[in-house]
Formats: sequence, C-alpha cells, structure tokens
Amino acid sequence: MSFISTALRLRACRDLQFKLPAINSLLIVDNSQRFNNRPYSLTHKEAPEKMAETIFTKIFAHVDKNKASYKNLLKEAVAIPSISCDVKHRDDCVRMVFWMQEKLKEVGAKTELREIGNQTIDGKEVKLPPVLVGILGNDPKKNTICIYGHLDVQPALKSDGWATDPFELVERDDKLYGRGSTDDKGPVLGWLHAINAYKAVGEELPVNLKFIFECMEESGSEGLDALLIEQLKPEGFFDSVDYVCISDNYWLGTTKPCITYGLRGISYYFLEVECAKMDLHSGVYGGTVHEAMSDLIYLMNQLVDKDGKILITDIYKSVAPLTENEKQLYNTIDFDPEAYRDTIKAYKLPHNGVKEQLLMHRWRYPSLSLHGIEGAAFQPGAKTVIPGKVIGKFSIRIVPDQEPEEVEKLVFDYVHKKWAERGSPNQMRITAQSGRAWTANPDHPHYQAAARATKLIYQTDPDMSREGGSIPVTITLQEASGRNVLLLPMGAGDDMAHSQNEKLNVRNYIEGVKLFAAYLYEVGKLPK
Amino acid sequence: MSFISTALRLRACRDLQFKLPAINSLLIVDNSQRFNNRPYSLTHKEAPEKMAETIFTKIFAHVDKNKASYKNLLKEAVAIPSISCDVKHRDDCVRMVFWMQEKLKEVGAKTELREIGNQTIDGKEVKLPPVLVGILGNDPKKNTICIYGHLDVQPALKSDGWATDPFELVERDDKLYGRGSTDDKGPVLGWLHAINAYKAVGEELPVNLKFIFECMEESGSEGLDALLIEQLKPEGFFDSVDYVCISDNYWLGTTKPCITYGLRGISYYFLEVECAKMDLHSGVYGGTVHEAMSDLIYLMNQLVDKDGKILITDIYKSVAPLTENEKQLYNTIDFDPEAYRDTIKAYKLPHNGVKEQLLMHRWRYPSLSLHGIEGAAFQPGAKTVIPGKVIGKFSIRIVPDQEPEEVEKLVFDYVHKKWAERGSPNQMRITAQSGRAWTANPDHPHYQAAARATKLIYQTDPDMSREGGSIPVTITLQEASGRNVLLLPMGAGDDMAHSQNEKLNVRNYIEGVKLFAAYLYEVGKLPK
Repeated sequence: MSFISTALRLRACRDLQFKLPAINSLLIVDNSQRFNNRPYSLTHKEAPEKMAETIFTKIFAHVDKNKASYKNLLKEAVAIPSISCDVKHRDDCVRMVFWMQEKLKEVGAKTELREIGNQTIDGKEVKLPPVLVGILGNDPKKNTICIYGHLDVQPALKSDGWATDPFELVERDDKLYGRGSTDDKGPVLGWLHAINAYKAVGEELPVNLKFIFECMEESGSEGLDALLIEQLKPEGFFDSVDYVCISDNYWLGTTKPCITYGLRGISYYFLEVECAKMDLHSGVYGGTVHEAMSDLIYLMNQLVDKDGKILITDIYKSVAPLTENEKQLYNTIDFDPEAYRDTIKAYKLPHNGVKEQLLMHRWRYPSLSLHGIEGAAFQPGAKTVIPGKVIGKFSIRIVPDQEPEEVEKLVFDYVHKKWAERGSPNQMRITAQSGRAWTANPDHPHYQAAARATKLIYQTDPDMSREGGSIPVTITLQEASGRNVLLLPMGAGDDMAHSQNEKLNVRNYIEGVKLFAAYLYEVGKLPK
Repeated sequence: MSFISTALRLRACRDLQFKLPAINSLLIVDNSQRFNNRPYSLTHKEAPEKMAETIFTKIFAHVDKNKASYKNLLKEAVAIPSISCDVKHRDDCVRMVFWMQEKLKEVGAKTELREIGNQTIDGKEVKLPPVLVGILGNDPKKNTICIYGHLDVQPALKSDGWATDPFELVERDDKLYGRGSTDDKGPVLGWLHAINAYKAVGEELPVNLKFIFECMEESGSEGLDALLIEQLKPEGFFDSVDYVCISDNYWLGTTKPCITYGLRGISYYFLEVECAKMDLHSGVYGGTVHEAMSDLIYLMNQLVDKDGKILITDIYKSVAPLTENEKQLYNTIDFDPEAYRDTIKAYKLPHNGVKEQLLMHRWRYPSLSLHGIEGAAFQPGAKTVIPGKVIGKFSIRIVPDQEPEEVEKLVFDYVHKKWAERGSPNQMRITAQSGRAWTANPDHPHYQAAARATKLIYQTDPDMSREGGSIPVTITLQEASGRNVLLLPMGAGDDMAHSQNEKLNVRNYIEGVKLFAAYLYEVGKLPK
C-alpha cells in the first residue's frame, strides 16, 4: 500500500467535488460494540448454511493441499523486479502486467490491457505500463465486486540490509521473504487462488468479479485516475459494480485480523535548492560557494521538532477535533505498544508510549516525515562532493478535515517565509503532490460480510481499524463506482512493506486465500 | 585528486611525527617576484642547449603526430569503470591495474603488483586492488623521479546529468569528455606517452623513473600508506629517489599553467543516527517514531552558516594567522572571480566575490561541506520511507596549523554537545577519517626545473599556487622519501573532476605530454 496521488488524481477528485464524511461523524458509532460482541456465525439461514459448510470444507482442504504451488507462483511474481519508480525497470513492470494477464486468462477472465499514456521523467516522455482490466462472470443475479491490486514494488537492494536477495522469495521460519511478497503481489495472487479454488472443487463463483491491476501504485498511480474517471466510468465499467475491495494493507498487529475503514492522505513535497549547474569538488570549491546543501538542511530543519510536532504555521487548525466518543473507541483496539516498539527496535516511542495516543497519531493526526535528499551523496564511503542541486523530500500524512490545497498552501507559505529569512543567493523551488484522507462507513453490510468471513477463518472478531498510510485510489474507486469500498488486509503488521526484509507469513498467505474465498461467498449472499 | 586519508594513513603520519612547515613561514618568500620575472630559458649553457632544442623538436613533433593514438589509449582506459568506492566495480579496478601494468611493461619498466590486504565493508572483508609498482632505469649517474598516479575514478552515471556515457571518451569542441579523463587517467597516460616519445625519437631517457600507481585514491588510498611506509621504504625503494612528482591536480583557471606547492587537508565525518533497526513506512509509522532523519538534519544544520562560516566552537583558533607578506602574494595570482562564477553558474559568490578572499578561502582557510546522507531516500520520485538509520556525511578542509586530531576533537565535542541539547532518545555516533594539510617549498630547484619546463611549453611563467583539495599521499610520499614533492598539473581548472561531464582539453592532454617530457629533461639536468 501507500502511494501518493498524482496531480491528475487530485484534480479529478477535486473537480468532482467528492466529499468525505468527517471522521467524527463516523466514529460516534461505537464499532467495538457493534462488531466485537456480535455472534458471528453462518447460521442465519439453516439450509444454505449447511451448503456453505460443505463448500468451505472442500475449498479449505483444496487450499491447504495447494500451499506449495501457491508459494511457487508467488516466487515467480517476486522474481520480476517490477520497480515502478525506477525507469530502468519499466520493462519489468510491463512484463509483470503481461504475466498477470496470463494468470487471469487461465481462470477464465476476459482481460484487456489499457494504455494510460506517458510519464515525464527529466523532461523525457516515458511510456507508463498498461493497466490490466479483467471481467469474470456477468450473471445479473449475482453481486459484482471490483477488486483492485497492484503489481509494482518499491525499490530494494540486498545492500540495503536484506538478509537474502529481495527478488528471490525465500521461506524461513514460516515466513516468505521477498520484495512484493506482502505489498502487493501476495494479496493479488490470493484472489487468483481463491477463484481457482472454487473452480477446482466444482463450485460456482458466488459473485461476478471485475479486476483493476495496475503497475504504478508505488509511484503515485500515475495515469490511473484518468483511466478510471475518464475512460472506464463513461464506458460503464462500474455500472454493474456493487462493492469495491482492495487488499493492499496489513493487520494492526501480528495476531488479530482487522478490516480497514480509514486512511490518511498524503501531501508530498519536493524542496529543491540549486547553487551551481553541476556538482563541485569540495576541495577545489569548498569555501567559495554558497552550498545548496546547507540551505536545504536549514529548510528541512524548520519543518518538525524532535517529538514529531509539525512546525508549519496553522497546520493543525483544520484537523477534526477529537470527540469524547471517538476517544473511547481507541480503548478497545488490540494494540501493544511494547510489541510495536520491539518489532522495529525503536529506542523509545513518542507520546510516552501510551496506546491510545500512538493509535491516534498513526490514524487521526497528521505526521511529517523527512525521507531523504536527491542529488546529494548517498553511497557508502567518503564522497567529497558539493552537490550543485539537491531536492529534499518530505511528506505530511494528512487527515480529516485537512484539504490538500490548504495544506500545500500552508507549507509553501511557511517554506517561502523561512527561505526569505535565510537570505541565500541560491535558487529555491518547492512543489507538491497530494491526495486526501479517506474514511468509509464500517457499519455498511459490505463490512459486515467481510467481518463474518474474517471470523470464519481466524475465529475472532476483526478490529475495525484505520491506517496511517494512503491509498489514493481508494477515493477514486469510491468516486468512480459510487459504491462502498473496503480494505481487506492479508498480511500482518510486521510485514515490513517498503522496508528491508519484507515478508508475508505463510499463515497469512494461506489463510488469506481462504479469507478471500469466504469473503466472495459472504458478499455473494448480500441482497442484490 | 582529492581523496581522504584512511585511519591507517593518519596513524602512519602521526606515529612518524612528520612535521609540516607552517604556511606563514613559507609564504614570506615572495614567489611572484621569484618566478614571474625570472628570464626562463634553456640557454644557461649554450652547447647542451642546442642539443636540448634538437631533442625537443623531435619529441614535440612525435607527440603532435601521435595525437590520435594518445586519444585512443585514453579511450581504452576510460572505458574501464574502475570506481573504487563501489565494491561492485572492484574487478574493474583490478582489471585497470593489470591494463596499466601491461603498458608499463611495454615501455620497458620492471613491474610488480603489490597486494595491500583487505578492506572491511559492512563487516565483510573485501580484497583491495593491488598497487602497481614499477622501475624504469637505474643509471647511478641520473636523477631518479618517483611518479605517483591513480587509476581509479569517482562514481558516474549518465543519469547524474552527463551529456554522454561517462565511461565512453567522447571528443567535442576539442575536449575529451569521460570519467577519469583528467582525474587521473589522462595524466597517468601522459607519463607513458612522454617516455614513449623519448624512445620513439631514439633519445635516452634523461632520468631514472619509479612508479607508484594505485587504484584506491578516490576511496582514501586504503592500504597505500602501509605499503609505502612499512614495505617499500624498508625495502629501500625510496633510497635512490631524488624527487617525487604527482600529476593529479589542475590549473587554477583555464589558460595559465601553475605548479602547486600546497594542499588543504581533510577531516571527513560520518554522523550516524539510528531510530529503528529497519526502514519504516511513513504511513504506517509516521507520528509514532522519533525519526532519525529529523535528528540528523538538526545536527547537520548546526555545522555551518549560510555564508560558509563554520560553527564548530574554536575551529578557527589554530588557523595560521595571515601575515602581511602572505596577503600580498594573492594580489599577483591570475584569477578571475567572474569567470570562476560563470564556469559553475553560481548565482553569487561569497566574500563579495573579492579575488584575494576567494583564493584564501580555497587555499588557506578551512571550509565545511555537507555532502549528503547515506541510508535515506535518494532516488528520483516520491519514496515514502522513514529511514531507520542514516549517516550524514560532511567534511572540513583543514589548513595549516590545524592538526587532524585537534579538529576531530573539536567536532566531536561540539556535535555531542548539540546532541545532548537535542534530547533525542535515538542513538548517535560520529566517526572521522582525516589527513593533514601539506605545503612544500616552491623555491626548491625541483620547482624551478618544473617551472622551466612549463614555460617552454606554454610560453608563460606558471603561477606558484596552492589548492583547496587534499592528496594525503603527498605527505606520505614526502615522508617516505624524505624528498621534495611537486604537483605538476596537466588539466585545466574547469575540468570538473568528480562532477558531471568531467573532461580534459585536447590541448592540455597533448601539451601535457610535452610538458612531462620537458620536465623529465629539466630534472635530468639538475645536479646529482
């Protein structure tokens, strides 16, 4: 999960005046009561239930029997280094889309590769990988689910600190290590396995499916919004869609499943300072140039304090106030701060390590992260360069009721003010890409269906949770379809997406396939 | 040029208590008078002079005739990407050393590859490329020059902003573009061509030569000091050496040649902050970790102000005071600040663009540069990572009378004080590698011989200059041989070593070969 929206996506959302419910209007409903104490079962209608039990028995047995082949297919997918942010891997991205198209065809889907135009990199036009669109079934008596997933991955090098080659899926201690294992190739294949399982045991698929699999998610899903809003929607692709499901996120912790009804947005900044037209030798030029790096470091140091408080003037003003009801909600969530700290081996957590505070700062308060600097020395060793132009990268995870345009303006004004205070003769430029926060109604029957499926597999009520990350396509899909969107995670909270040693637990992968199968069944039962 | 000393080199220098003359004790000699107005000529003895003229006529004609083959050989050398700081290119470094060994053998030198042990990278032992040692001639009646050069290069990617492939030598507008063209493959081949020219025209080489060509210069010359001090010196390699010459630097500007008698030292810092054992997803973790990046940016922002003034407490205390005599020296140097500014396209130069101030800040005052951050996002695009561990890189170019140990202590104390003020729970560590500044006596006969050679080729008196960069091996060679060391540049001041589009002017390459031939002749005439 987690990509940033393109300017295009943002524009599309804004133009259509899509309005999100404010977080506090949603959260006054006490989810913990609603979900945690409901007697989940498959017994509301006795006869179909027996049938369901038979189906599930067959499907689950099939899934358990096919573990090895599921792993092998994931191994194949992970071996394709479909790194979308690196244009050198563009062919691998295209290859990955072709590979997945074949798999969809094998399960009987009608597929189409939709070209989505070019991307401009360093002034050059580079073709974007096509989006894989698929349709499986068109029975008017069945519900139709639109499934979204992505086939691209974040960059990864063994030298970043991976224990094994990131592009070779390796099983160790019941975990499948590899870039993309959990984000998002494992979940995408999970859908494939679930469909295959129905076919293998001779059961009809309980729903119609529509697929949107892209390969630019980790790079802002460039071109996808235009495809969804300007092409697929007018063509009627979403007309028959009843529900939208995305599996591109994770449990909150490592043991308890959850279903996700909220995401933070993101406002990503490119802060560029230029002091010369080329990099310079620090011995030859040091002392005789106003160095861009020291200007950039100065600006980046003005953004956030050591406790994570954002220093941008008025940035907290439009954050939805915390109501008493919402506050109560956090008490019941299963979250262990010490386990969380230990997973990442942080020295100490902020907010005094208080559970509710930590959850709120992940989900309902904005955070600012400094990601790095493009154009400066980044290699190991002692490079003695004075970079001529550097681009500092930082982002703010935005929340209800922050609007991207408003946040961008606050940041631009603040940075320009600090730049004026600096009085440097160098050239500074700041640009942004933003996508707004998203929340859905967790009381929707779609969420209840997913909760029943989850309980069936994991024997426990899922937490209804939010996430700190951003999947802007969630908003676009909600807008394009006008339907309820649900995030159904497969992986665990320690899967380390985007990080070194990304993994997917074998259990999450295999039970995830069963979960997806049960979810299709439960949605199939929802009234048409 | 410009590499930093390894801990080993530093230790070796310190243990041997090698003392440099203070800058002010050197500079009270007025070089401008001594060199600029002396009637250089080859006429002090009439008969040998005629002979010299004949020799030079033949040699220069040969050099002019062989331009194409000189370029081809440089093309071959540039095509080997001998990037010493990137262990993936270690084989290329070894290949480059072998390649050069063959060339030295072809001119009749006895050669030897000396193994210099391993380097530790990320806890792993990696073999260093061997050092190429050579001997050509052992006539006890002739002077012996020890020539040092390096075969490795800085990293370079076309995507860094090169107009052409950095590892393919391309001629455009009488310039030879390619990584290593000027730093230092061109000069190294220059020696080869000069020797070959003597042979080709049937003239005896006027001196004995010893060669030390390494392939780790751009990475701190790791292992070289130990070889020079602990092996070659005890073995007597330097016993017959009368002079040491290094061609690994550049003219001050683009038209007037110079000879270099001083270099700044360097104290390079690795400032590491760790907040977690792995990189984290900024959506999932943002707001719930004390981010290492914001701590590092805070620390890096405390080091230097916007005008380049170093903020480390007491850092300027031991800088040799500027005497009136030294101050006068700067007036006569040929240096055009506006041309300098325009070459790099800086918006404005510091020190109000005053020539003398700029030169002093390049040569005799320390400067601090922020080079970059290892472990953070550096790629184009919008990576949303919270880096777990980041290493800020900065260095101070140190000058007489700053001692590396003293500078390191000041920096460590200052950074630790600022870190305590920060009050972060994260872990911080700072380490350094340093090499001291170097100055030689430009009044030495060796410098006069080089000045005569330069005047013969360029029809103008060379400036006696210093440089802001560091070549720590200069000190080690001075120490190991006990002889006068001279830096004889081939390239021009706009060659952009270490930068994008590094080049060597065809003129500097070809006239440089003649210069080296004339230098060998002039040193050959010095009394034994």
